[in-house]
Amino acid sequence: MTELEALAAGIRAGQYRALAKAISLVERDDPRSERLLADIYPATGKARVLGITGSPGSGKSTLVASIARFTRKQGKRVGIIAVDPTSPFTGGAILGDRIRMSDLYTDKGVFIRSMATRGFLGGLARATNDVVDVLDASGFDLVLVETVGVGQDEVEVVRTVQTNIVVLVPGMGDDIQAIKAGIMEIGDVFVVNKADRPGADKTVTEIQMMMSLVEEHGDWIPPIVKTVASKNEGIAELDEAVAAHYAYLDRSGELVRRSRERVRIRIETDLKQKFMDHLIGGVVPRAEYETLLDDVLHKKDNPHDAAENLLDRVRKR
Amino acid sequence: MTELEALAAGIRAGQYRALAKAISLVERDDPRSERLLADIYPATGKARVLGITGSPGSGKSTLVASIARFTRKQGKRVGIIAVDPTSPFTGGAILGDRIRMSDLYTDKGVFIRSMATRGFLGGLARATNDVVDVLDASGFDLVLVETVGVGQDEVEVVRTVQTNIVVLVPGMGDDIQAIKAGIMEIGDVFVVNKADRPGADKTVTEIQMMMSLVEEHGDWIPPIVKTVASKNEGIAELDEAVAAHYAYLDRSGELVRRSRERVRIRIETDLKQKFMDHLIGGVVPRAEYETLLDDVLHKKDNPHDAAENLLDRVRKR
Repeated sequence: MTELEALAAGIRAGQYRALAKAISLVERDDPRSERLLADIYPATGKARVLGITGSPGSGKSTLVASIARFTRKQGKRVGIIAVDPTSPFTGGAILGDRIRMSDLYTDKGVFIRSMATRGFLGGLARATNDVVDVLDASGFDLVLVETVGVGQDEVEVVRTVQTNIVVLVPGMGDDIQAIKAGIMEIGDVFVVNKADRPGADKTVTEIQMMMSLVEEHGDWIPPIVKTVASKNEGIAELDEAVAAHYAYLDRSGELVRRSRERVRIRIETDLKQKFMDHLIGGVVPRAEYETLLDDVLHKKDNPHDAAENLLDRVRKR
Repeated sequence: MTELEALAAGIRAGQYRALAKAISLVERDDPRSERLLADIYPATGKARVLGITGSPGSGKSTLVASIARFTRKQGKRVGIIAVDPTSPFTGGAILGDRIRMSDLYTDKGVFIRSMATRGFLGGLARATNDVVDVLDASGFDLVLVETVGVGQDEVEVVRTVQTNIVVLVPGMGDDIQAIKAGIMEIGDVFVVNKADRPGADKTVTEIQMMMSLVEEHGDWIPPIVKTVASKNEGIAELDEAVAAHYAYLDRSGELVRRSRERVRIRIETDLKQKFMDHLIGGVVPRAEYETLLDDVLHKKDNPHDAAENLLDRVRKR
């Protein structure tokens, strides 16, 4: 058994050390990580993967912690992947928040990983997907991916979860307009957190109004759940809403469709990157490519013909 | 002279009809548009391209209108590309806003185009870049790209402008936290619009504080300009700040660096799409690719090996 095979076996056996080592390999885009991910891939597909999306200040980290505790009480193992750099899980928030979550850090049935560091070589979305796979293969029942939902990487991350929970808070004012323009379409379940604040019902009404403006949401009408995550209120109701969404995904064929789309995105992202690596520095020497960029910059060539000619070099081989 | 050559000549001569026709070709990804864009490309590079980014409700459309009027008074031609679906320029806002901008719609020196319709086949960022090129080749001195700055497409659009203006309003509360997580890094100039409202100075201070937390912004410290766009107040100051940024871009070599990066992004985006078109349905029959997706979905294969094997088909030809 090679070292890599032993590592894959360790992951499948749910060993904490193997898990931590594998995730480190993925994070630094180690050449061995690809073989490892291929090895463990058949053991994936059992975990439920939820996205928790919301602005900093929406209390989504507290909600993530609350969902994790709720799930732990059912004896299930929970992985938390924090993509938001301001999350307490990534060390970006005030110390008090971290202390309130110390029970999760010491629980062996909970694995917390920050993905907030910039500069993943293979892309943040790809790295997040790979970490989800490692946790999944390692027997975690639930993986929570916490993201702010803004920016290119984050949107890509959200596209690969099974159920996306969008977290809002009462009294957002103009904020709800901004949500319309980007976040409304991606919510499978809406949460109005901090619902003990004034205006919670108004926010629910506002979300309902916004939802009526979104043209396509298929047969699923996203439920709106009121929570007070800091007091663990509304978590059972949220769990029910998420379970209902999963049942919908399953019976409608949408689960297979989303899984297949996720597979397609992963293959094509990987493929495009591999192709560029093959082309630039491989088929076309890097110095020649840099000269080509200069030619286009100085109008001796144009982007469209340059792309066509580069592809021809591959086509004609 | 072919029809396409006549169209390219019409664009370079600044003819309105040629311009409108070319943009229609680009928008529906007509096969002829690529040849056309290649033809006019040498005539591009003279326009100043500004991004105006902010939430709906920040008054950024009013600011865009105000900048356009200011620039028109100098006898320059102005193009407006609205990417935000809630902008009055895209027909997404209340009628009153559109009426207040009617002077711009009847001015032949102003060209307004909405890019808010979803489903650009070649991608929104690519289509926006192409429309910028058409306006640029047609002699427009200034192109304003209005975007909400949230979402994958929008972030891509912002990456290709020369100077990005981020618009904020007083009294954002938690909003400023959300900005930190995504928008702060992309601002070359900050505007506190609706600065006649209470709390404008507090917002300026908040932006300064957030800015001190952003690690890298090179030698350029983004200025913060207070405006009341609805009264055309602060527009001259904003114009000065934008001019100062351009002077910085020029003398620091950053202008060439950004232009070159823009060229690189355009070539590589194009190339990746052309490659996928070449591979799927070309080298690899579509039905075979669909079967491969199913194999990965059903764990008979994995994404990493699938991508590697697909690329091998190109490598080995």
